[in-house]
Amino acid sequence: MRECFELRDVDAGGRIGSLSIPRAGRSVETPALLPVINPHLETISPRRLHEEFGAEAIITNAYIFHGSEDFRERALAEGLHDVLDFPGAIVTDSGSFQLAEYGEIDVTTEEILAFQREIGSDVGTPVDIPTPPDVSRERAESELATTQERLELAESVDTGEMLVTAPIQGSTHWDLREAAAAHADGTDLDVFPIGAVVPLLNEYRYADVVDVVAAAKRGLGADAPVHLFGAGHPMMFALAVAMGCDLFDSAAYAIYARDDRYLTVRGTRHLEDLDHLPCPCPVCTEHGAAGLRSLPDGPRETALAAHNLHVSFAEIRRIKAAIRAGNLLELVEERARCHPAMLDGYRTLLDHADQLERTDPASKGTFFYASHESARRPEVRRHHARLARLDVPDAVFLTEGPDAPTDEYAESWRVVPPFGPFPRALSKTYPLTAEVPERTDRASIRAAARGVSALVEANPEADFGLGHRGWPPDALAALPARVESVDLTTDG
Amino acid sequence: MRECFELRDVDAGGRIGSLSIPRAGRSVETPALLPVINPHLETISPRRLHEEFGAEAIITNAYIFHGSEDFRERALAEGLHDVLDFPGAIVTDSGSFQLAEYGEIDVTTEEILAFQREIGSDVGTPVDIPTPPDVSRERAESELATTQERLELAESVDTGEMLVTAPIQGSTHWDLREAAAAHADGTDLDVFPIGAVVPLLNEYRYADVVDVVAAAKRGLGADAPVHLFGAGHPMMFALAVAMGCDLFDSAAYAIYARDDRYLTVRGTRHLEDLDHLPCPCPVCTEHGAAGLRSLPDGPRETALAAHNLHVSFAEIRRIKAAIRAGNLLELVEERARCHPAMLDGYRTLLDHADQLERTDPASKGTFFYASHESARRPEVRRHHARLARLDVPDAVFLTEGPDAPTDEYAESWRVVPPFGPFPRALSKTYPLTAEVPERTDRASIRAAARGVSALVEANPEADFGLGHRGWPPDALAALPARVESVDLTTDG
Repeated sequence: MRECFELRDVDAGGRIGSLSIPRAGRSVETPALLPVINPHLETISPRRLHEEFGAEAIITNAYIFHGSEDFRERALAEGLHDVLDFPGAIVTDSGSFQLAEYGEIDVTTEEILAFQREIGSDVGTPVDIPTPPDVSRERAESELATTQERLELAESVDTGEMLVTAPIQGSTHWDLREAAAAHADGTDLDVFPIGAVVPLLNEYRYADVVDVVAAAKRGLGADAPVHLFGAGHPMMFALAVAMGCDLFDSAAYAIYARDDRYLTVRGTRHLEDLDHLPCPCPVCTEHGAAGLRSLPDGPRETALAAHNLHVSFAEIRRIKAAIRAGNLLELVEERARCHPAMLDGYRTLLDHADQLERTDPASKGTFFYASHESARRPEVRRHHARLARLDVPDAVFLTEGPDAPTDEYAESWRVVPPFGPFPRALSKTYPLTAEVPERTDRASIRAAARGVSALVEANPEADFGLGHRGWPPDALAALPARVESVDLTTDG
Repeated sequence: MRECFELRDVDAGGRIGSLSIPRAGRSVETPALLPVINPHLETISPRRLHEEFGAEAIITNAYIFHGSEDFRERALAEGLHDVLDFPGAIVTDSGSFQLAEYGEIDVTTEEILAFQREIGSDVGTPVDIPTPPDVSRERAESELATTQERLELAESVDTGEMLVTAPIQGSTHWDLREAAAAHADGTDLDVFPIGAVVPLLNEYRYADVVDVVAAAKRGLGADAPVHLFGAGHPMMFALAVAMGCDLFDSAAYAIYARDDRYLTVRGTRHLEDLDHLPCPCPVCTEHGAAGLRSLPDGPRETALAAHNLHVSFAEIRRIKAAIRAGNLLELVEERARCHPAMLDGYRTLLDHADQLERTDPASKGTFFYASHESARRPEVRRHHARLARLDVPDAVFLTEGPDAPTDEYAESWRVVPPFGPFPRALSKTYPLTAEVPERTDRASIRAAARGVSALVEANPEADFGLGHRGWPPDALAALPARVESVDLTTDG
């Protein structure tokens, strides 16, 4: 077990955890958002991030400190916490980003880890190779081999109490991402950033982001804290958490503010297009749209950055509240409607329903059927798997309505789309306490039919009748032929 | 034209309007939320509602003032605005609610209108009969006849500059609601509350609320400001606005706060169940969950009421921003995922797509396909209707992929689910600039097939080919037989 990370609560692939950071003398509750601090361009002071926004940790780039004579000397003399004036945990990056952007950097993994330790970083990072998406397998493999050497090197360096990250690369080759994650998990490094997803995020390729995370999670143990490196837009936090990400970092709050871009959980707006501010945060309630627009450049940038942070931190709290309530996927359902690319992301998440099902609690808050997509949720798949293990009498009438019309059936079981059939005794157990719409849909009915098929196929000796409320022909046609079905909505 | 109401912007059935209230010497921008003030139980002062929350109007009950000797004398002597200390517009109810609750009240329409005028109400209300849902047609008709007499009486009374409301009743009989609305619209009264929907809201019968509003809107002119009377939960504001409601009133903010209930746009939570506050409002950012819980009773109630108002007003602003951006239905898509009953409400709204289409602008922001439900949106239906009017050459290849494989076709048109076919020249016109998911769904494909059918059936002389990307058999089977279809995803 990784001692630094403890899980407190789980929902789908999402979890509330506690990441102990010994050198900071504190732990950080996850999911956590780490504001990115650029020492050259302070938008909101680290002290204010801590006191006003409750940031428990921030992230900055050790390579910037290393490369600036002034900052280097100050950091070595005073320590990073004093230079930045931040009392929480400080995570540092190593210059890998600059490597990816500019092709080379002038430090090695040993040097930058030693430097991070010297300046007092709480979580340091080796120099990995951030392989972009869509590159050839050869390139991805060869760069991954280098990244893995660096991780092994990092393992061998004495980093004292400082935690060290083990970035996971592999481009958009899922098996490489999984292998990279398994390798990283096998080191004694502590935190697992999934690297080089920024190009995917910039192009709204949320489906690919989900596949990258799913692959990495398959290679990692449940005790591995996962950082989706470079992800800072609150629109996609819930989706990423549901896949199993624990840490995010936001430079967006500040960078967007510089261009008058206003973050919301539904996407980004430009301030000049807003006559009404769709947010109750202190900045928006104090200024209003016209007031915010009329601020001078500097105060407007600071105010927008504060708004961007308020909505981002509120979304993190909303996600935690959803995990506690057991309705994280309901929140993902909502966020999936913000952009068609987010819908692609959610549909792709549901491709991994069996993977999510393995960590999902057996019982939680009421299941809400919220869309056609809900029919593919892990809880539905689990019920279908469970149907094959239930004891069944010789003849059962499965019904959406009243009991069996004749006494040829020993029992009547209820049928509720999307779950399908279950014995009445299970009606009050999770997830069969589900709230479903009165107006059902074909996806839900087809899922219920899959449940009927699972039960019937597992019990070749038993007889089955089905009383349904106007199921469409394709759903009925998919049932085993020996199911006698009756449409309860037709007369007579 | 009703001179008191001016439309500024429209999206689906929703609109931003300006309601002029002569007696208040001001106008109110709609959609507007009117906090309910109970003079006996002040939770947040009217002055604070105005200054801190930006409330342009509030609503209180003239019957309470009338029935309390103390309040009556003060209101007659000082006027309602001074007694309540509110500088915006004050709307008053008449005691109809008490009539519905207790079976009788001791004022007539003439008396209460005269009283409302005397105490300085800006918008007064006659004594209508709030007929509950699900009553017999006889009872609904007979009570509606009484309500209509009262409206005619109200019309005949001299109310000076005070605007007067014309409540619309009719229970859950849609034709009665429509007739009641047409009758009310024919009076010279000013504001149109849709009455007696609270029992539907309390039971989460959002589908019925949508049908009630749709029926009332069919009877009203576009210039009629509509008040969804008693609706105060922010979860359903977007749905109601999209159906054409302009005014809401919230007693919920205060009543819920008394029971430690915490409003969100996703539903209601109990404060004691929240370890994390899913909101960036000033109350939540200042106190945090533990801090809010540990406040003494009085301050906690006030703080919760303030939070409840912050999220409610922010949702109203979010709705206005969505109308301006032309993406109100995208917001409704999200809210529809908050509860299965909200999904029923949205599915029912889409039953009225043709009614909404009549007010929907021909061009607005980018259409986002956000769910199977999106395939039934008014914009899709409008495109299908338009297809029948397009000029078509003798032979057209309709294609999701490359141009026609042979030269037997004079033109190739694009096919994009859910819209279906269109000439390439229209590619950059609304709504065909739509963003759609890469992973399409059957509802979208079936809608595209309906588009193909509409085009083919309108052009019996032309030949049509269809190049599709793996459409399911049921979608293809629904096409006219003379369409030659080619699956572009199969080899050869």
